Amino acid sequence: MTNTNCWISISENSDFSIHNIPFGIFSTKNNASKAGIAIGDQILDLVVASELGVFNSLDFNPHVFKSKTLNDFIALGKEITSRVRTIIQEELTNADSILKKDSSVFVNQKDAQMHLPVFVGDYTDFYSSIEHATNVGTMFRDPNNALLPNWKHIPVGYHGRASSIIVSGVDVHRPMGQTIAPDVKEPTYGPSNRVDFELEMAYIIGKKTSLGDTVKVENAEEYIFGKVLFNDWSARDIQKWEYVPLGPFLAKNFASSISPWIVTMDALEPFKVSGPEQTPKVLPYLEYKGERNYDIGLQVAIKTESGQESVVSNSNFKYMYWNMAQQLAHHTMNGCNINVGDMMGSGTISGKSKDSYGSMLELSWAGKNPILLKDGTQRTFIADNDTVIMRGFCQKDGKKVGFGEVKTKLLPAKQ
Amino acid sequence: MTNTNCWISISENSDFSIHNIPFGIFSTKNNASKAGIAIGDQILDLVVASELGVFNSLDFNPHVFKSKTLNDFIALGKEITSRVRTIIQEELTNADSILKKDSSVFVNQKDAQMHLPVFVGDYTDFYSSIEHATNVGTMFRDPNNALLPNWKHIPVGYHGRASSIIVSGVDVHRPMGQTIAPDVKEPTYGPSNRVDFELEMAYIIGKKTSLGDTVKVENAEEYIFGKVLFNDWSARDIQKWEYVPLGPFLAKNFASSISPWIVTMDALEPFKVSGPEQTPKVLPYLEYKGERNYDIGLQVAIKTESGQESVVSNSNFKYMYWNMAQQLAHHTMNGCNINVGDMMGSGTISGKSKDSYGSMLELSWAGKNPILLKDGTQRTFIADNDTVIMRGFCQKDGKKVGFGEVKTKLLPAKQ
Repeated sequence: MTNTNCWISISENSDFSIHNIPFGIFSTKNNASKAGIAIGDQILDLVVASELGVFNSLDFNPHVFKSKTLNDFIALGKEITSRVRTIIQEELTNADSILKKDSSVFVNQKDAQMHLPVFVGDYTDFYSSIEHATNVGTMFRDPNNALLPNWKHIPVGYHGRASSIIVSGVDVHRPMGQTIAPDVKEPTYGPSNRVDFELEMAYIIGKKTSLGDTVKVENAEEYIFGKVLFNDWSARDIQKWEYVPLGPFLAKNFASSISPWIVTMDALEPFKVSGPEQTPKVLPYLEYKGERNYDIGLQVAIKTESGQESVVSNSNFKYMYWNMAQQLAHHTMNGCNINVGDMMGSGTISGKSKDSYGSMLELSWAGKNPILLKDGTQRTFIADNDTVIMRGFCQKDGKKVGFGEVKTKLLPAKQ
Repeated sequence: MTNTNCWISISENSDFSIHNIPFGIFSTKNNASKAGIAIGDQILDLVVASELGVFNSLDFNPHVFKSKTLNDFIALGKEITSRVRTIIQEELTNADSILKKDSSVFVNQKDAQMHLPVFVGDYTDFYSSIEHATNVGTMFRDPNNALLPNWKHIPVGYHGRASSIIVSGVDVHRPMGQTIAPDVKEPTYGPSNRVDFELEMAYIIGKKTSLGDTVKVENAEEYIFGKVLFNDWSARDIQKWEYVPLGPFLAKNFASSISPWIVTMDALEPFKVSGPEQTPKVLPYLEYKGERNYDIGLQVAIKTESGQESVVSNSNFKYMYWNMAQQLAHHTMNGCNINVGDMMGSGTISGKSKDSYGSMLELSWAGKNPILLKDGTQRTFIADNDTVIMRGFCQKDGKKVGFGEVKTKLLPAKQ
């Protein structure tokens, strides 16, 4: 199957090729939120498609496509959701498809508004990039002992705030907060001066468990529906003062931005690669076999008020030390239950080279080395009215599967 | 209004006096989950009461009482929910009440099963007892600098796991986890050996905000619907190894137990008291006036397999250094949005004396001083098949307002 077999026009460079078929929630001027699939620069309306009968061979209630979130659809299980994807691929490459005969099947992406694809009940963020953890440990602790003793034994994670997860395109205000200047004893109240992005990806849980159940590494992929790009906004100065001993709180929960299209694990399957060697050996419940990392190129750009866009980082999801299967096995080893729509962040994804770091904290080395942007201005952290744009895609053997983008503008603080 | 004016019999010692009227979700053999009010040893069925017309003077859809959670009812706002409570008080003290004429209004509590009263979208746990924070700091850090520098400036909090919040009566398995023995380098996998309770209370959010909004200290109580007892189960050995640098994770998310009846802030109003003096002075956004603490006596008991119950702690919610209004103002200062049903835990509530500590960690001083129970056995932490029971009530001027109990049995680990 190639894009050229497809009877709708798809640019060769599109993230949303026939090989992708990601799911999202969209609305238009005339239609309330519903489920769709991105294909080229169009959205295929799943409500209309199901009314035309293309899913008649499957046993599910198409009402799930009329929901404001994909949770009920995803909860049908991969037996259904994977078939919905392949049926769409078949229809889009079938010159006699009924979808071809009804123009209301497609909506131009520029005429649609995208919404959060799922209701996120719980959101967990991991800290699984060894390059990121090493950079942070080097800056703030000891360059010779950058990683804490637990880091190579545990996919370290913590709970985040689900309510403030927003979709690409929603603006964020610079947060107010408590910070403390170096060498003084009293904190002050004011806008954060160190607002940062974190280049992450997140996976969406596709199958629930009950309290007390565990998910084994070897079965973990059954529980993962797909992935999105994730900008885990962070206020470094607030974090520094608040985070001991219970972890980040207000430094993170003012906003967490995700891309609107969930790329399925089916679509990502061809891009599996080996992960880094894990030494020392992990405990048996974390051992895995085969290729569990994914080669997903990632990019961060800053668009300033001038309108000019500067790429500040090129990273890759394949750098992750801990893979998703290990993260999920660890998360549930104690019986913690997961629900459909739960979101699991990777942690900042930094590569080895300086231009592949996934945060301004690392790129500017805690503010010491400003980054020069195309419009001639410099950045150590994110400035008011900057827009942070993250993009990501896989490409191999002529197949491209992309995530689109997560784009968020930082507005001045509300004081 | 006294219990004796009430036309249904209420024991003098009941937590659920005419002054209380807490809300919960119950089911019976013949009826699915719905909303009710606890009164004496009965449950008043709010669906039946509304069908009898007692809320006809209020403008809301009584369908909210047929929901599996109280979220939609609470979201109606205090203009409605406070009136529902006072109407019930009026009816129960009105000898001619229509409720008296229909026996299907009441269900005996022992014939009902209680459920989680709300769907919790997000759960935050604070760390607001100075005695608890001091005890922990003394044990694990430095007795002369027990409190971390931020503690008296910030109501320290972190995000918890909402999916594993369970109602009283649901058993919990001892969690499996990674722990590390003293003076070794490699962690091991096995059942936690230091499973502990944390005596807490939690408040339930009654009014939502939008992303970017803040809640001021002076308005915070508008956003709080009511309170429950909360046992924040903790695995101390897992926590010790995992918690740096991002806070507790698997040590806490295997279970968090709450009592089934939400006692409203209206019912707690008569029990307000002054809080402890806060020195140094807090930042202006955290300053408050008047009485913002509550005199709520709290008790923890352990019931062993022998069936004998031993009280191991007597504490009080009035000891809290940071009050709920300050916690909520802090939580939203950065624009973090809150939703109806969100739960905010107090943190462990320890008093000054050794018999008022709110966790086994403190009561046994990290396992050094075992506690003798009535059946002659000793405990440093919780043993398999122990049931932890927390109770709490207010009493003043002949009025008693109680929370009932949160009771959870610890089953052996699933290996």
